[in-house]
Amino acid sequence: MSAVSTDLDAYLSTHDARIQRELFDLLRIPSVSARSEHDADTARAAEWVAQSLRDAGLEASVHPTGGHPVVVGEWRGAGAGAPTVLVYGHYDVQPAEPLELWTSPAFEPTIRDGKLFARGSVDDKGQLFLHVKALEAHLKARGRLPVNVIVLAEGEEEVGSEHLAGFIEANAARLQADAVVISDSAMFAPGLPSILSSLRGLAYFQIDVQGPAQDLHSGSYGGAVVNPAMALARILATMHDADGRIAIPGFYDAVHAWDARVLEQMRGLPFDEEHFRAEAGSPALGGEKGYTVLERLWTRPTCEVNGLLSGYTGEGAKTVLPAKAMAKVSCRLVPDQDPAAIEALMKAHVARVAPKGVTVTVTHLHGGRPWRAELAGPLFDAARRALAAAFGREPVITGEGGSIPVVGDFQRILGAPVLLVGFGLPGENAHAPDEWMSVENFTKGMRAIAALWDELGTSTGRTK
Amino acid sequence: MSAVSTDLDAYLSTHDARIQRELFDLLRIPSVSARSEHDADTARAAEWVAQSLRDAGLEASVHPTGGHPVVVGEWRGAGAGAPTVLVYGHYDVQPAEPLELWTSPAFEPTIRDGKLFARGSVDDKGQLFLHVKALEAHLKARGRLPVNVIVLAEGEEEVGSEHLAGFIEANAARLQADAVVISDSAMFAPGLPSILSSLRGLAYFQIDVQGPAQDLHSGSYGGAVVNPAMALARILATMHDADGRIAIPGFYDAVHAWDARVLEQMRGLPFDEEHFRAEAGSPALGGEKGYTVLERLWTRPTCEVNGLLSGYTGEGAKTVLPAKAMAKVSCRLVPDQDPAAIEALMKAHVARVAPKGVTVTVTHLHGGRPWRAELAGPLFDAARRALAAAFGREPVITGEGGSIPVVGDFQRILGAPVLLVGFGLPGENAHAPDEWMSVENFTKGMRAIAALWDELGTSTGRTK
Repeated sequence: MSAVSTDLDAYLSTHDARIQRELFDLLRIPSVSARSEHDADTARAAEWVAQSLRDAGLEASVHPTGGHPVVVGEWRGAGAGAPTVLVYGHYDVQPAEPLELWTSPAFEPTIRDGKLFARGSVDDKGQLFLHVKALEAHLKARGRLPVNVIVLAEGEEEVGSEHLAGFIEANAARLQADAVVISDSAMFAPGLPSILSSLRGLAYFQIDVQGPAQDLHSGSYGGAVVNPAMALARILATMHDADGRIAIPGFYDAVHAWDARVLEQMRGLPFDEEHFRAEAGSPALGGEKGYTVLERLWTRPTCEVNGLLSGYTGEGAKTVLPAKAMAKVSCRLVPDQDPAAIEALMKAHVARVAPKGVTVTVTHLHGGRPWRAELAGPLFDAARRALAAAFGREPVITGEGGSIPVVGDFQRILGAPVLLVGFGLPGENAHAPDEWMSVENFTKGMRAIAALWDELGTSTGRTK
Repeated sequence: MSAVSTDLDAYLSTHDARIQRELFDLLRIPSVSARSEHDADTARAAEWVAQSLRDAGLEASVHPTGGHPVVVGEWRGAGAGAPTVLVYGHYDVQPAEPLELWTSPAFEPTIRDGKLFARGSVDDKGQLFLHVKALEAHLKARGRLPVNVIVLAEGEEEVGSEHLAGFIEANAARLQADAVVISDSAMFAPGLPSILSSLRGLAYFQIDVQGPAQDLHSGSYGGAVVNPAMALARILATMHDADGRIAIPGFYDAVHAWDARVLEQMRGLPFDEEHFRAEAGSPALGGEKGYTVLERLWTRPTCEVNGLLSGYTGEGAKTVLPAKAMAKVSCRLVPDQDPAAIEALMKAHVARVAPKGVTVTVTHLHGGRPWRAELAGPLFDAARRALAAAFGREPVITGEGGSIPVVGDFQRILGAPVLLVGFGLPGENAHAPDEWMSVENFTKGMRAIAALWDELGTSTGRTK
């Protein structure tokens, strides 16, 4: 088993305290891309990341888009004979609400029990930043990198990466790479480095049900005016059958059988359903009949309610017949489901089941395609060696229930293989209060990525 | 047809501008009983009402309860041979939210097109105040009233009148009356004075569904952790069948056939379903199959969603699997449904249909019994004559879909017949933005009530 080079390891150890201070500074910026009132913060985070790339020794620029800016960092000193890698990450974060459920403030990084708590700690600022520091280690300790590097950091990942594909297309020549490396996922368990074999896609909707023109007295109108909140509940209840299977006609048409070897590997993973249940804090697990928990999470699509709002939700009782009701509903997709096709199916289904007496609108807020990795080749082999060097054991192949919509875009536009190697951990609360990242994983992650560049640079020929 | 006495009519005309100024002052107090942050306002409204009773010539006192205070005004100068009437009203109001939908501010009374807009204008401050001014007219114009009067004004009507029954019971001797008169309802149409034959009761619940211990990433957990918002939707969808009939087992057991003569009168009322639909601003009317709109509103029970809240409800998309979901659900009841019995049925039903993987709690926030009037006797006859005198036409007998929980308490504790004679109008937005009361109805309502005391005082013997 190879080891992380001593000079890189020493550099990162020497600068450990400064690196942590810098990371804290980045985490303090509330770059919530979904909230327009945070636009200035999101812009500030982009500038901060660009400056950190420059400090590491790259050239960096901030590119406006129709939404939040894209940051590009470049170092091309390895020469035309060396491979070029593109590192992707995002500097935007999920909203921090509900704020009262955070043990320490969402934007005031705090370490407790080896965990760094902050919104964005693991998703994805911490993981983006460990890449920046791995590059810095090479460039400061040795004055050079064994590969040419492009860093692409976006600010719209949490709201659907609306402008990223267009940016990549418009800059495809400049962004041409032999491999794409992304750290925006989790390891299967502590101490168990992991390479991802798949991602679920996403189709995210808002369903608006409009009943009467305004809120009405539920005594004076109730029973004769259709209640939009009850109508919404009845619409949502049609989306699954009694077995937890999605009942939207045509929904599974593009779902293909999973690779038997990957399924077999999954069954070999040390997964404790009771531990997973306890960590989620759920009274009991559930889901589609006939599948294990990992199969439900990684290989099966979902239809979830992400939010509900209607009428009176405050203290006490208000006898109102609400004018409207809203649900945020999202489907996780698996290969080869297409967000646009799911949008059409969802709209047709809701139109079919919507009761008379209300007006129902389905808006597709954003979507991303599911993705499946190629688990072979120089990039995959280099990653296995680098992870083994940093973590002291061979990585496992896992799946991922979440979505990184741009992965498919990279593969499609740049034609380069994508490596998903993340350093989060189960229970990290990525989209919830008390998000955290393991300090140990941050430390070893920097070293694994630093080693990856060595492995890739010395691999025979270009990776593609 | 009798007329309103000239002296009372002249007094009210002379003081019209002052009366309106005073009413505006009362409406400016945001006495929202459901919101603890308005407790001081609610207490201020109680003192204001007590002072207005004193100014009118009654003795008045404010009585603390476990919640908001009860105001009692008394004038007993008519002597033991004259009947004693108890006037009930409430000085608390519904919450004004959503504030942005008010054309003029909720607590800044404004007259437009003959309508007085303000929260509480018709429910019930305006109607309570017209009683105070009718009493004032007698006491100032003549120095006396033809009946003994007790005014009872509470501050918890909009939150279930929790402490009123106890107050009436504890003060039953002092509150003993031959008749109870309440103006907290609407006329059937402009110019059509109305006496109510029935009220629906209420059983108001909050359903809380707890899933995971905290909000989770819908990608990392979705499909294997039961979604509490989807579970809530499925629970709510079990509450009606496809015909709009409530599907909670046993729900209709105590519902009795309606009096055929009252049903026949209802069918004769000038009711325009299309006008009702347009006024509600609803795309189409709906409800239980086999009933007319008025029957649905007045004679049939309901099960409504009054509010929904779960997960992320802000701008954009957040891929969260919510920790919990909440619905406010209320049932309007008809004779002889009992709120406590409905509570037991609702809890049993929800427990039966709740899916595994979530914890569901049903809390009964408050209830009130339905009520049916006796449409005969001296009180009823006096009211018919007084309304005819003030409005120039015979009143109609109507039903009411709303609830006034204390009506049953008055009948039960004091043993006195209750007269419900209200001066609201359809479309008055009693629990919604832009609540209003007809200025004409306020003016004629004062005169009708002033005439009622004359009619009752001259009726042979006591009314009971």
